[in-house]
Amino acid sequence: MPVGTKGTVKGLTPGDLRGAGAGVVLGNTYHLYLRPGADIVREAGGLHGFSGWDGPMLTDSGGFQVFSLAKTRRIGEGGVRFASIYDGSVHEFTPELTTRVQEDLGADVAMVLDECPPANAGREYHAESLRRTARWAERCKEAHGREDQALFGIVQGGLHKDLRAESLERTVEIGFPGYAVGGLSVGESRGEMLETLAATATLLPEARPRYFMGIGDPVGILQVIALGVDMFDCVLPTRLARHGAALTPDGRINLKNARFRRDFGPLDPECSCETCAGYSRAYLSHLVREDELLGHRLLTLHNVHFTVALCRQARAEISAGRFAGWSAAWISRYEGK
Amino acid sequence: MPVGTKGTVKGLTPGDLRGAGAGVVLGNTYHLYLRPGADIVREAGGLHGFSGWDGPMLTDSGGFQVFSLAKTRRIGEGGVRFASIYDGSVHEFTPELTTRVQEDLGADVAMVLDECPPANAGREYHAESLRRTARWAERCKEAHGREDQALFGIVQGGLHKDLRAESLERTVEIGFPGYAVGGLSVGESRGEMLETLAATATLLPEARPRYFMGIGDPVGILQVIALGVDMFDCVLPTRLARHGAALTPDGRINLKNARFRRDFGPLDPECSCETCAGYSRAYLSHLVREDELLGHRLLTLHNVHFTVALCRQARAEISAGRFAGWSAAWISRYEGK
Repeated sequence: MPVGTKGTVKGLTPGDLRGAGAGVVLGNTYHLYLRPGADIVREAGGLHGFSGWDGPMLTDSGGFQVFSLAKTRRIGEGGVRFASIYDGSVHEFTPELTTRVQEDLGADVAMVLDECPPANAGREYHAESLRRTARWAERCKEAHGREDQALFGIVQGGLHKDLRAESLERTVEIGFPGYAVGGLSVGESRGEMLETLAATATLLPEARPRYFMGIGDPVGILQVIALGVDMFDCVLPTRLARHGAALTPDGRINLKNARFRRDFGPLDPECSCETCAGYSRAYLSHLVREDELLGHRLLTLHNVHFTVALCRQARAEISAGRFAGWSAAWISRYEGK
Repeated sequence: MPVGTKGTVKGLTPGDLRGAGAGVVLGNTYHLYLRPGADIVREAGGLHGFSGWDGPMLTDSGGFQVFSLAKTRRIGEGGVRFASIYDGSVHEFTPELTTRVQEDLGADVAMVLDECPPANAGREYHAESLRRTARWAERCKEAHGREDQALFGIVQGGLHKDLRAESLERTVEIGFPGYAVGGLSVGESRGEMLETLAATATLLPEARPRYFMGIGDPVGILQVIALGVDMFDCVLPTRLARHGAALTPDGRINLKNARFRRDFGPLDPECSCETCAGYSRAYLSHLVREDELLGHRLLTLHNVHFTVALCRQARAEISAGRFAGWSAAWISRYEGK
């Protein structure tokens, strides 16, 4: 899922996203609640009407942003108080409020409010937190009324496998049409992340979508797919683009590098996106060096196209029963080994 | 002519420009000479090959930027020395060099190197300067070799009608396939500009294109068309867009204004561009308030489309023999009178 933080995948139109083959687009409740406000989005016909994207959409609950962005916050049983990164104004997210806000935003999938403690928060804290998150999940389910919107639960528990199992059990007991694994990819090592995910993913109900929150590098995507994950989101492909970096089957390249100034070939000869079809590495290199809007746009388009195409290919390889071998070969080429 | 300063009309692809009906796209020799360098553009197949725009193109000589941007410059009979705005490195533009650079850039129309003194530079200085500019024009013509590229002359002379007449006579005597009026729209009042232009434009050869350098507001465009001008360029429509301002038949509006936050109608109901067809003022207002790339892109697209459509309409009204009446009514609506 490409991330449209503030109701737009930075630089791209809905038409561009369709052209890139994007399936679900993600919006951030934290940002949209503060700017322009859920009331305006609702009056515009929800995020679909507001942004013009008519495909599937998912909104997070805003919990992650409260815990990662806010300087001031106070968490209690009721919810979490925080100061807006925009103007310092104080707000409180409760399970009921973030559910109502997401109903106003009107995405096809909404998420429960969860706490996402740092990996090193301590076992005691993680245990306390996951139980509160489970209580919040129950309140979210209770508050949720839109029948045309799915509400997904979130599993927490840090890097503690037994706490993950407890969180999963509590969340599945409440019952949701889909489940996310949260609180990973937040500073721990890739190995710790995969180990924890492996212990969690296999316990998730097989008939429900499994959503890993916050991964978007090509290798990471293939690694979590291998563990049974169906959905994931990350700003990485779009953020990299705005820093001049492009994804290719032979690894990530930075177009600011001097060797691209006279490279008149396409960005990725195997890619069919508008950027690779129409422009040279030399031109893209010039655009990103000059911080030109078109450079951000064209690289974003490519990185989204590339990532979506990778996922489609992975799906095809799974269907054909050759995912493991294909994935290993793909990663080895990407990592230049 | 939309301005593609550094080889890109900021935020737009060649496809967008075609869709907006753009005819000629302008590139700035000053910037392209310094970044990425004329050699790289030449190796890429000229500006057309480099940028992917396959329609007509014009490059200026870089003279205007040297005189308006450079902190340090020294002008002599040979040319003008200046310090790059990018890194302070010292360069010299001579008539021969800017002609060769423009041949490398390979636009369909190139311009002679001219000096563009401030309006208040004094009569003596303007007289001296226009004569040097005429001598430079001769050297440019001498140096120019590409037969698939037209080289236009430039008339200077400040606000002095007799000096304008002298500059025009000297430039026409050298003989060019097209002529530009330079050194106006640089700080003098609109009235002074139009008066000087009126006295100049009527003396320009009728069978050659007349290019007014540096005007792009809708009213100004109609005013210079009324005086016989065929071509003009300005960053105004694209720069305004990046500041959140949009052109409409009822005047310029700034989408950061609070009244647009809940305005769910199109930007300009009479416009057929992608922006007006697909997005509301409320969404565009949100994007520009949040400084989103997509906001810059969509407003730029609209402003270019709007300005090009205005020029097409003006051409149709001229053909139908009703330009004066139509133009007066258009301006009066735009100015809200």
